[in-house]
Amino acid sequence: MQIKSRIRTIAHYPHEGIMFRDITTLLKDPVGLRTTIQEISNRYKTLKIDKVAGIESRGFIIGAPVAYELGLGFVPIRKKGKLPAETRGRDYQLEYGSDRIEIHLDAIQRGDRVLLIDDLIATGGTAEAAAALIQEMGGEVVECCFVIDLPDVGGRSRLEIQGFKVFALCEFAGD
Amino acid sequence: MQIKSRIRTIAHYPHEGIMFRDITTLLKDPVGLRTTIQEISNRYKTLKIDKVAGIESRGFIIGAPVAYELGLGFVPIRKKGKLPAETRGRDYQLEYGSDRIEIHLDAIQRGDRVLLIDDLIATGGTAEAAAALIQEMGGEVVECCFVIDLPDVGGRSRLEIQGFKVFALCEFAGD
Repeated sequence: MQIKSRIRTIAHYPHEGIMFRDITTLLKDPVGLRTTIQEISNRYKTLKIDKVAGIESRGFIIGAPVAYELGLGFVPIRKKGKLPAETRGRDYQLEYGSDRIEIHLDAIQRGDRVLLIDDLIATGGTAEAAAALIQEMGGEVVECCFVIDLPDVGGRSRLEIQGFKVFALCEFAGD
Repeated sequence: MQIKSRIRTIAHYPHEGIMFRDITTLLKDPVGLRTTIQEISNRYKTLKIDKVAGIESRGFIIGAPVAYELGLGFVPIRKKGKLPAETRGRDYQLEYGSDRIEIHLDAIQRGDRVLLIDDLIATGGTAEAAAALIQEMGGEVVECCFVIDLPDVGGRSRLEIQGFKVFALCEFAGD
């Protein structure tokens, strides 16, 4: 099954000129969901991962089943103020303004080998903040894994320059 | 494994007097995540479910692995303005003000037997809106499934009065 063929493109969403890659058409398809989760899990099953961390909120839809399939626990990385217990956070720049992601202090132990998952990497700002935050907390980011990479936007290079490994199931380039 | 024993209670979050039930301690535990997903999946595997729908965003963490385990597709139910394609929505009342949930129009087909999942039922406002919206779109809500029920808050009764079936893995009562 071609994962890329089940991803819908919505032109000019959320802004004029943006080709939005919509994974809901992949997720609602039983074969699409199964293949996505299994292709990711197969890549990591021998890599001694300790935890899967997913970025709010589409990263939860991919990350939680991967954690389940690998027999691991799942750690949510959330926007500011959403986690109820003590957190560590990191601010990052957006095109206009800034945002902040947070992880529960008790979610990452020193030495944990963490697989970081989100649905898509574009500029990589959120993923870079998430990976750096896991490192700050003493975790090792084994790889940053996405369903979709938009290589023209530069997020993969940005993460790789910081020393993080990047994997994506498919890419959309040249729009 | 006792699911309830792995749920953390945070007193006075987000407001004075609220005992917040935090599932992140359950999810980060490999046995906790696995047991939660398998107990839910075992309940539904013979019930001819067509789709699993999860409510943003903790409902994604439970609903997506259940869909995966059952070999089904997953449909995200999101807050207003988060879904990129054409949606149908439903407004519902909060303690102060109102909110709106939305589902992609192409996500539910007439006659679909849908399992609705969220992490917790308290007042049941969001779940009631989600279940009613699925019905409006022609889907049949087989059951509304939660990890946690807070029976003192009345959400289960509210859903049952509307004719919806409700199941929860555990409950916290009498605080």
